[in-house]
Amino acid sequence: MNKLLGILDVQYPIIQGGMGNISNAILTSAVSEAGGLGTIGAGTMTPEEVESIIIETKNRTNKSFALNVALTVSPYPREMLQLAIKYKLKAVSLSAGNPSPYIGKLKEHGIKVLTVVASCKQAKKAENAGADIVVAEGYEAAGINSNLETTTFVLIPQIVDSVRIPVIAAGGIGDGRGLVAAMALGASGVQIGTRLIATSDSPFHLHYKTKIVDSKDDETIIVGRSVGRIRRVLKTPYSQYLLSKEEEGITLEQFNELTTEEKHILGAIKGNLNSGFINSGQIAGLISDLPTVKQLFQNMIKEGKNVITDIKNNLH
Amino acid sequence: MNKLLGILDVQYPIIQGGMGNISNAILTSAVSEAGGLGTIGAGTMTPEEVESIIIETKNRTNKSFALNVALTVSPYPREMLQLAIKYKLKAVSLSAGNPSPYIGKLKEHGIKVLTVVASCKQAKKAENAGADIVVAEGYEAAGINSNLETTTFVLIPQIVDSVRIPVIAAGGIGDGRGLVAAMALGASGVQIGTRLIATSDSPFHLHYKTKIVDSKDDETIIVGRSVGRIRRVLKTPYSQYLLSKEEEGITLEQFNELTTEEKHILGAIKGNLNSGFINSGQIAGLISDLPTVKQLFQNMIKEGKNVITDIKNNLH
Repeated sequence: MNKLLGILDVQYPIIQGGMGNISNAILTSAVSEAGGLGTIGAGTMTPEEVESIIIETKNRTNKSFALNVALTVSPYPREMLQLAIKYKLKAVSLSAGNPSPYIGKLKEHGIKVLTVVASCKQAKKAENAGADIVVAEGYEAAGINSNLETTTFVLIPQIVDSVRIPVIAAGGIGDGRGLVAAMALGASGVQIGTRLIATSDSPFHLHYKTKIVDSKDDETIIVGRSVGRIRRVLKTPYSQYLLSKEEEGITLEQFNELTTEEKHILGAIKGNLNSGFINSGQIAGLISDLPTVKQLFQNMIKEGKNVITDIKNNLH
Repeated sequence: MNKLLGILDVQYPIIQGGMGNISNAILTSAVSEAGGLGTIGAGTMTPEEVESIIIETKNRTNKSFALNVALTVSPYPREMLQLAIKYKLKAVSLSAGNPSPYIGKLKEHGIKVLTVVASCKQAKKAENAGADIVVAEGYEAAGINSNLETTTFVLIPQIVDSVRIPVIAAGGIGDGRGLVAAMALGASGVQIGTRLIATSDSPFHLHYKTKIVDSKDDETIIVGRSVGRIRRVLKTPYSQYLLSKEEEGITLEQFNELTTEEKHILGAIKGNLNSGFINSGQIAGLISDLPTVKQLFQNMIKEGKNVITDIKNNLH
């Protein structure tokens, strides 16, 4: 029995990635309704904005869902956690910052705490601080990532060996093969993001979804490296403009100006790929359709079961 | 039945990575004797040097082994392939360059051709040129790598979907979990390098082996990015010196001067970590012992079988 299912009260060991700022009740509720754990990513949104998404999600589903708070990104981390307590959310995932000061309070209220980590050191720290689950995110993942650049394939088994709490694999997962591979490496489940954007349920701009479906294996790029920030985005006119600005030489402050959340919303929600960016994991190249979230999960589980049979026949 | 085993005449679906220049008959024969496919990496060695390693390997084992030729690295690619034909080697792996002009001749002589690729485009090109197998190498791998930086987790399924010939996964594999994960992603087998260096059979300097065993998850670094070259090495005084020179600004020519094969041999064979470098994959952090190659393979297969049972119990 997969212990993750019991902890998170879900049918499938699949959770939604944070998607700060572009989060919405439609996709979050679709993920939870389909048997996974939907997640609202607070990003830099105000408590009022997030509260309204929580209320709308509760109107759309009776199932559990989570709130992701990127601690050093949100201007209101404490208020976000108060919202999770107020609305008795099943789980909160904490990323981009030290989760230790927040974990105790959430657990007092019966909220499960997931912490997003990119190294064994961070994972052990989270476990020691009382986290229930660690989400280990590899270099292939979409959006802001760790400068360590450790990939999912090597990160998962090392984190599994470092902690006793369940580990969820994030970064690079798009189908049943990825689900089983993550489990083979020791993960109890997977977190997916890019694959969920490319669904018929997701309310992102069609330019964003189409770009994921059309992209080949070499079409995500890293921007921000020259200023010590790693962000994985799709190759678009705007991301190539960012790279050219980096080539000329820009400061972290200038880079931040060019990658504000407004620029993110401009790309992902407004579909303007000349003046806004769109996050994407390297898995984009594998994605070629826009199923409903429910179809996606059912296909992943079905394919996953077939994969297990195939490997048994292949490994003597 | 795993078709790879028949093609390569091996007991286990595990092959040795190239290891140009530091290759030797001892490790190559140990891998083949243990049931995998040993490989001699020609690197920049002369035909005479490689011939003597082939002869010594044949004296040590009656089992099949392969020769790896990095086409744009070796000053003698044609001579190397002549050696493979002369000594009736089972297989040749071609990397770092266009394999198309060489595949036909090798196949005429009954030699199986593996091509090392890092993108779907390269994989399809190799298949069309007649390759028997593609080795798909992810960003986590040791040594010189592709600027595309596509990781093993996402590269394998995309390549598997692009070609009909068997795919071997390379980069990030160190135990039975990695073996099964690679197979879950669609690979027929795995290529390993760093894990083989850290064996009691391998004749590399103890400083090299110890450094792998002692390293944590954040101790491989990329050098050469500033000049358009990606090489994954372990964090040592010399690699940190390389990074500092890149920070100051150096040309590709200067970088090449600092990373000649003499510098490689100085680190890996002589164990001088102040004046030579040592390649390593990100998997180094997972490695904590120096088994024989035979023990390693037996453990990988045994662990792999247990992993399959565990996933079956975890995926409902």
